[in-house]
Amino acid sequence: MITKKDIHKDFTEKIKVIDGGICAVSKVEVAGVRDGKYGVSIIVCKNSDVVGVFTSNKVIAAPVEYTKNTIENGKLSAIIANSGNANCFTGDQGVFDCETTVEIVSKIFEIPKTEIAIASTGVIGRKMPMDIILRLINQTSEVLENSNNASINAAKAIMTTDTVYKQASVEVTLENNQKVKIGGICKGTGMIAPNMGTMLCFIATDAIADQKTLKESLKKAVDDSFNMVIVDGDESTNDTVLLFANGESKNSILVNKVNDSNIDKNFQEGLNVLCKDLAKQMAKDGEGATKFIEVEVRGAKSKSDAQIASKSVVKSPLVKSAVFGGDPNWGRIVAAVGYSGAHIDPDDITIAISSNDNLVDLVLDGEILAFEGTDNLENAESIMKEKSIKIIIDLKNGKYNAIAYGCDLTYDYVKINAEYTT
Amino acid sequence: MITKKDIHKDFTEKIKVIDGGICAVSKVEVAGVRDGKYGVSIIVCKNSDVVGVFTSNKVIAAPVEYTKNTIENGKLSAIIANSGNANCFTGDQGVFDCETTVEIVSKIFEIPKTEIAIASTGVIGRKMPMDIILRLINQTSEVLENSNNASINAAKAIMTTDTVYKQASVEVTLENNQKVKIGGICKGTGMIAPNMGTMLCFIATDAIADQKTLKESLKKAVDDSFNMVIVDGDESTNDTVLLFANGESKNSILVNKVNDSNIDKNFQEGLNVLCKDLAKQMAKDGEGATKFIEVEVRGAKSKSDAQIASKSVVKSPLVKSAVFGGDPNWGRIVAAVGYSGAHIDPDDITIAISSNDNLVDLVLDGEILAFEGTDNLENAESIMKEKSIKIIIDLKNGKYNAIAYGCDLTYDYVKINAEYTT
Repeated sequence: MITKKDIHKDFTEKIKVIDGGICAVSKVEVAGVRDGKYGVSIIVCKNSDVVGVFTSNKVIAAPVEYTKNTIENGKLSAIIANSGNANCFTGDQGVFDCETTVEIVSKIFEIPKTEIAIASTGVIGRKMPMDIILRLINQTSEVLENSNNASINAAKAIMTTDTVYKQASVEVTLENNQKVKIGGICKGTGMIAPNMGTMLCFIATDAIADQKTLKESLKKAVDDSFNMVIVDGDESTNDTVLLFANGESKNSILVNKVNDSNIDKNFQEGLNVLCKDLAKQMAKDGEGATKFIEVEVRGAKSKSDAQIASKSVVKSPLVKSAVFGGDPNWGRIVAAVGYSGAHIDPDDITIAISSNDNLVDLVLDGEILAFEGTDNLENAESIMKEKSIKIIIDLKNGKYNAIAYGCDLTYDYVKINAEYTT
Repeated sequence: MITKKDIHKDFTEKIKVIDGGICAVSKVEVAGVRDGKYGVSIIVCKNSDVVGVFTSNKVIAAPVEYTKNTIENGKLSAIIANSGNANCFTGDQGVFDCETTVEIVSKIFEIPKTEIAIASTGVIGRKMPMDIILRLINQTSEVLENSNNASINAAKAIMTTDTVYKQASVEVTLENNQKVKIGGICKGTGMIAPNMGTMLCFIATDAIADQKTLKESLKKAVDDSFNMVIVDGDESTNDTVLLFANGESKNSILVNKVNDSNIDKNFQEGLNVLCKDLAKQMAKDGEGATKFIEVEVRGAKSKSDAQIASKSVVKSPLVKSAVFGGDPNWGRIVAAVGYSGAHIDPDDITIAISSNDNLVDLVLDGEILAFEGTDNLENAESIMKEKSIKIIIDLKNGKYNAIAYGCDLTYDYVKINAEYTT
């Protein structure tokens, strides 16, 4: 969740955190119903413009293929999502089940099939339990509404190994002082994984926007949020992020500028804030996680250097184990930066860790400050006891920054993934 | 260790497994002495030709920098290696300690400093305990000999988190029927890590070879062995592999061929076998490992496709956890291949697992054969109970193969790395 404290730190007064999740956007009607490990969420959003981002895994689930085609025409009126079965590696049967599902939803809501997106998450390689799914679709379709509770139910119905539901919503004051809202729900343990860890995210806005503008805006937001979350580096066959705009606010985010983006910069900030908040919620809920890790790399020679260096650290099993053990192990951090491929000079590297308002230097310009007997090490060790830890690395090599999000590596991560059987 | 069984499977009759470790090569005198967590190994090999391969981490330990320079002239007469301290991130003091160490060894054995290589493994960011190291050097220098026991002691003295010493040796019948020997020792938990997991490997041969030939031969061997071992993907600041030839056999591995490699192909096979065996010993000894995993990718479009796909699977925390849990989770294998970046067609993918002489298909041409209730799943589950598991993936996409080596992800891996404190 975005807290007041985050607001002051993380974004401008143009962005206001509001309630409602995906239903913060008017006219968006949703519902979610669960039955044991299966769940169905339906989002109705007639005549919206839509864009999507999907997994880059070469093994792609049937619903992802289906939805990619659906949204090509740019129109969306409903999303049908299920948990419990990913409908992946299911051959022709999987495609047939997608079509059946969409046909039912099309009939119930009198929506053309070409305007319905479908998403699935759960076990792969098993046929969809269509009897259960269709029953849940009927139950869900009867309780649609535009309310915070409905958004929460929709968020809950797509949970798999998630331990908490995830939603966020903001109100943005555009450059022309008009207001628009953005709200979303998502699921994902941060563990981008082939079984239960898929990330699904559905974001609504009441702004007026053409597909090209939405696509550009979503890509920017995803690059700095969902693409920077790593729990174990495994990537799902079902990852799906959809952003749709229903224009209810009557306010457009398309601004005509010369030599500049055509997207209202406050809208972009709002979407970034929303996606980062959802990304953090996923990392915090990483399988077996006891601690949230944020790795900020500053002073990189390029944006990509900042990204690979921060991801390398947040992904390192050694760093993750050290955080679990409460060990401010700067050596593992330095080494992870060293093998990341980013341009670095070890003699310039500066590393600090912080939590809440405490901050302590571990390494300054290549010189170790936190060794046995120093206050720095003592302070570092107390910071490592916190639940949320930020590692800040300054490469002093350029002007580019990036932040990666992750969590610690714990006994429970191994337990969950060793004992889970197909 | 290489067993008779492996011999039939893995290599031709031109290669014969022999005893002796690095001392299988005559005139190579070695010794190793430990004192608690510290140890020193000395290898004396006067007037040898030498080549090396080193870590690609941008943070490099002082001894690695030093040895890179030393071996540039191509001559080696001694190697001094220590465990317990990596002499990395130690600034000018680290360089000074290298020079002091080499100077002592130079005096003791009357060897020019320019022919002495130095290697360290252990904690990084701490000054070398020179008093202890120098005392151990003196003790070690008094017990040098050419024997299997001496090789074992040298292998033991460089161990850190290793639970077993690692050595191997073979006799090769060259294309011209002359014989040469190759022997080596190494340490490394397979976990290429910044703290205790560094890999050090010293290989001797009595063949006659110029530096260019040795370099080409070592690179080929390392690419298919040490570069294919992954425990957690972290890479050390100290990794060092040295190959030296003392010519004692009087037989040369340099053959003059037109349009072909100048290296005797049997020698190359022998060096490959030796390095792969040492690589497997490291993977089996991976931190916290209970199971050895071999991932063979066949039918890849390119060598690099075969390498990235096999490494992606052996590195996947989900696959590693599944192996620990005894779960034949083909879904995680498919997904790891899918995001590896290799060219694949999911409809062609074929996956089998084997152990000893049992082999069972999990997926055949994209069709799942191991699902609930099938004999395949039952057999797969019994294979997964074995200590050594081979995953074979045929991409049916080309003619290139690669094998990656690793181990399972266990509670002990997390324990070792969470509780280890700098």
